[in-house]
Amino acid sequence: MPSRMSCGRDLHCVPDINSSLESACKSGFDFACMPVVNPRLKREFVEGPAKNRPGPLTRSDLCLPSSDWNNLVVGKLSPWIQVDSPHYHIRKNSEMALKQELNFAAHLGLPAVIVPLRSSQSINLARCLNEHILSSYCPQQFWVHVPLVSAKDQADSVFEGEDEDMEGKEIEDTWSWWNTFRSLCDSSKKLDVLLEVTADLPGEEAIQRWLAEPVRVVLVSTRLFLTNKRGYPVLSKAHQTFLKRFFKLDVQVVLTGADRHPDKGIRCYHQYLDHLWQTQEPQDPVTEFSKGFEDYLQCPLQPLMDNLESHTYEIFEKDPVKYSEYQQAIYRALLDKVPEEEKDTKELVLMVVGAGRGPLVRAAISAIKQTGRKVKKIYAVEKNPNAVVTLENMRDEMWGSMVEVVSCDMRVWDAPQKADILISELLGSFGDNELSPECLDGAQRFLKDDGISIPSEYTSYMAPLQSAKLYSEFRVNKDKDKGPDSSFEMPYVVRLHNCQILDEPQKVFTFHHPKRDAVIDNSRHKSLEFVVKDDCVIHALAGYFDTVLYKDVTLSIVPSTHSPGMFSWFPILFPLKTPTFVTRGTKVVIEIWRCVTEKNVWYEWTMVRPQTLPIHNPKGRSYTIGL
Amino acid sequence: MPSRMSCGRDLHCVPDINSSLESACKSGFDFACMPVVNPRLKREFVEGPAKNRPGPLTRSDLCLPSSDWNNLVVGKLSPWIQVDSPHYHIRKNSEMALKQELNFAAHLGLPAVIVPLRSSQSINLARCLNEHILSSYCPQQFWVHVPLVSAKDQADSVFEGEDEDMEGKEIEDTWSWWNTFRSLCDSSKKLDVLLEVTADLPGEEAIQRWLAEPVRVVLVSTRLFLTNKRGYPVLSKAHQTFLKRFFKLDVQVVLTGADRHPDKGIRCYHQYLDHLWQTQEPQDPVTEFSKGFEDYLQCPLQPLMDNLESHTYEIFEKDPVKYSEYQQAIYRALLDKVPEEEKDTKELVLMVVGAGRGPLVRAAISAIKQTGRKVKKIYAVEKNPNAVVTLENMRDEMWGSMVEVVSCDMRVWDAPQKADILISELLGSFGDNELSPECLDGAQRFLKDDGISIPSEYTSYMAPLQSAKLYSEFRVNKDKDKGPDSSFEMPYVVRLHNCQILDEPQKVFTFHHPKRDAVIDNSRHKSLEFVVKDDCVIHALAGYFDTVLYKDVTLSIVPSTHSPGMFSWFPILFPLKTPTFVTRGTKVVIEIWRCVTEKNVWYEWTMVRPQTLPIHNPKGRSYTIGL
Repeated sequence: MPSRMSCGRDLHCVPDINSSLESACKSGFDFACMPVVNPRLKREFVEGPAKNRPGPLTRSDLCLPSSDWNNLVVGKLSPWIQVDSPHYHIRKNSEMALKQELNFAAHLGLPAVIVPLRSSQSINLARCLNEHILSSYCPQQFWVHVPLVSAKDQADSVFEGEDEDMEGKEIEDTWSWWNTFRSLCDSSKKLDVLLEVTADLPGEEAIQRWLAEPVRVVLVSTRLFLTNKRGYPVLSKAHQTFLKRFFKLDVQVVLTGADRHPDKGIRCYHQYLDHLWQTQEPQDPVTEFSKGFEDYLQCPLQPLMDNLESHTYEIFEKDPVKYSEYQQAIYRALLDKVPEEEKDTKELVLMVVGAGRGPLVRAAISAIKQTGRKVKKIYAVEKNPNAVVTLENMRDEMWGSMVEVVSCDMRVWDAPQKADILISELLGSFGDNELSPECLDGAQRFLKDDGISIPSEYTSYMAPLQSAKLYSEFRVNKDKDKGPDSSFEMPYVVRLHNCQILDEPQKVFTFHHPKRDAVIDNSRHKSLEFVVKDDCVIHALAGYFDTVLYKDVTLSIVPSTHSPGMFSWFPILFPLKTPTFVTRGTKVVIEIWRCVTEKNVWYEWTMVRPQTLPIHNPKGRSYTIGL
Repeated sequence: MPSRMSCGRDLHCVPDINSSLESACKSGFDFACMPVVNPRLKREFVEGPAKNRPGPLTRSDLCLPSSDWNNLVVGKLSPWIQVDSPHYHIRKNSEMALKQELNFAAHLGLPAVIVPLRSSQSINLARCLNEHILSSYCPQQFWVHVPLVSAKDQADSVFEGEDEDMEGKEIEDTWSWWNTFRSLCDSSKKLDVLLEVTADLPGEEAIQRWLAEPVRVVLVSTRLFLTNKRGYPVLSKAHQTFLKRFFKLDVQVVLTGADRHPDKGIRCYHQYLDHLWQTQEPQDPVTEFSKGFEDYLQCPLQPLMDNLESHTYEIFEKDPVKYSEYQQAIYRALLDKVPEEEKDTKELVLMVVGAGRGPLVRAAISAIKQTGRKVKKIYAVEKNPNAVVTLENMRDEMWGSMVEVVSCDMRVWDAPQKADILISELLGSFGDNELSPECLDGAQRFLKDDGISIPSEYTSYMAPLQSAKLYSEFRVNKDKDKGPDSSFEMPYVVRLHNCQILDEPQKVFTFHHPKRDAVIDNSRHKSLEFVVKDDCVIHALAGYFDTVLYKDVTLSIVPSTHSPGMFSWFPILFPLKTPTFVTRGTKVVIEIWRCVTEKNVWYEWTMVRPQTLPIHNPKGRSYTIGL
């Protein structure tokens, strides 16, 4: 999170651009929003007296150096432009003016242009803007201006005469304006939301839905401000809370409206907003750790096929929760294995399979000391020869002969004796997705019949998710070599941020260890049924897992049961190729398969209700996990 | 250019990594080079007493936090590794050790590993390294260590016994070691040159050739240093000059060898080298302007098809030379058009076609004032409506009614009267490549029969060029939509830096204006013959132009006649698909065509001798300039 807020000033009238900008900057603002074209200069392209009015369209670009145009000025379109007007003349004239203003904004290299949505009828506006984005060189973003509550529905509506008719009428959903608009523009990354904060705030569900949209800017009017005892402008508690929720998305703020506290100066509004920014609650350790990873797509690790690097081990070893829970599980298992009366006679054999640089060996040694139980040998089996260098140094320098380092793949290792406790940490964000089932099935041949596996069980979870941001990321990520849709056919590990989970996650696949079945089959299929609480768009499926290490010692990344402070795993995400609009209360059915061959494991998934999409990743064509 | 030099210390023996690193950092060094594996720990994989020696391969990665491994340590391979040995046993053992060390360096995340070339026989080393680069996750660069002069050829050679045999022997060309090595590795961007400065320096041509290679580091031994009167280490003038030439490539420096001035401390060497860095000559204005653009590929502008942006106009208008030369040309043309005795009676008509934001209009007005000649009208014709906004503001605010702004494409404009002087600036880096010929041919219909065109003539130039760096850039730039080779079939505008021009540029195409021919044909074909001065690799063809604005008022970007201080144009570059090795004195024949249809203009080019390459960009399949 940046240490200070970026705040712009909305200017309606700019008689002299240099003095207006200077005054905004002096009041502490970082940029100013102003009309691209002088409001006096309404043009007529089609007919009428103003047609071919002589003189320049607007002020010269020489008024400012281009670095100022590029950094300090956000453009606003002329308010009389109405490309969705039913009147041919107004529409045509507006289309030509819109094109002219968009081109001039591109010429100036403005960082952004504000595009206002005034109703659900912005179909032709979407077409015109989309054409501009695709056809021209287009350096800027478009801030699509949407009010939280439509002007008609606002208590202080200017449409006062209509007030009486409002009773009992359904409130217009401004989110659907935006959803229609961006869908028409094929979810272009060039579109951001500029969300206008209204005096009345919508319900919690509507706010959560906005938090899953690419809201880059919030527009705050001076009219929303109250006056405190000392005469300074302040916001209501409700508005404060609202703004702080959006500050988490790193939004910028634009202040609009006249100064209503002229004795204090416009600077006071800015200072108050910045004060809100500065007084955000301190972040929890997981959020702190995840900084910079928000909504960033990572390919899941393939530790079986690739060797992890030193740096990766270092990060995972820092988890403050995971290894203390492992130590606790080992502690409990040791006590169960060796009753108090046998503690001086019975000696156990432990194996850590996939020992990495030794964190589980350390946890086992600590647990052993804690219990006072005797251990004959701890085998530390690791296939990565680079991590074995660390293990061998640790044995020489700290652990001594109780630990035996085995530089070998656990699936082919010929163990000299069987183990009482088999300890591993092979779990991925979706539980089984780093092939823990296959590895532990291979390793259990050297576990005694009454031996214990830590972990003893793990379960994956899944829920539908809305996130326009992540949908754009899937598209950007495309790998032409594997076909245009391949980026939608692989899971990603992501710190979820600008998104919304649409229903409670449900259990998907469960695995137990050791398995005592005659035939082991790790392939799976599951059908899941969800119900969404509000109108929404489904973009992907979020995945999680929890695990029973031993008895009631567990780890979880499922939101409702997340182990506090544990940061080793971010959620996993299964994309869907087609964003699907779903209305409130609709049943959503998801199918997912875990497919297994001798060489590979992969997932296939899709949605079958309310709309049926093609099966994603058939035959593992875009993504497999190598054995 | 960074304000200070990045300098590393080469360590041969590292008994304790923490204290060695700390001591290097305390002496002011930014990083240290050290063996990946303890030199004591020579391994035997194949046979012999050391096979399967117990204990860890080397020190643990836990010795340092991974951020230190990633930033402060450059790895060196064990000196006994000889994968090109003729002895099977040594070779096999070396191959396995090399693989182990490269993998461990990747595990640590070292920023670079030094790979020494000791002779031209490094064929198998190239294969092993290339396999590593392609097959594994490979976060680092490889610094290929090449001496400027081979050990055998050095005056202070350790091969003293062989000294007598050296007389009359041909000196070994160490550049060819590198050239062979990188060619085997398909010019991988993972390879940089670490150039070892030797007591004897090679000839000027050899140094120029190295300046065209990706030299990232120079290795300086303490043995090269002399002692000044105050007892401090200093370098000879020749070595100083040499280093300063490579500083221009932003090289890093590694200091090797024992401290030979122990009373002053190793820090003094570093301070002396940094002193050399700081006392580089100040840069000329063009170099200053080009900062950050060195070797950066830009697509040539297409001002006919695209509208330039405000920012682009702003940059070009700042050129301190171009417009004063234009003013001088207009001044001379005005005097020639109107003799002193007619200056109060004769009135001229000027046209600026492609007026942009008006710099040529300003130049014309200044020239008019300077001469005292009368001008009835200056037409400023511009097709970009965004630039017209600027022109109209200038006319309203400064120029008045003498200037008439015409918002129109010059090729379709219906001029109300004919011009005496037609002024334009439609030239690209290759002269005609922004379609000045086609535009001015269209515009000359409104030039009087005795009218003057400024410019009146322009000529393109071309020369073969060596640059491994730029060759890699062409490859990275590939656009899969247009086929895998398309990035080699388009010209680029580039500030040439890490490269070498292999022979004097020669004239290619010339155009005159106005043309009085009955039939105008702007298609061209030229065959050029060059002779290279030294063994080299041809990667591309560099292009330039010069122009006669009027009589002896000229502009040029040809290196030998470059207008001093003018920065409006960087050279253009035509890539060649296959890097071609050419021996000293060989004739090189280049063919280039300018092809013209009603809609497009494009170039086709190739080399036919000494090796014949396919014609590049046939039918304009990868690149055309739109009319």
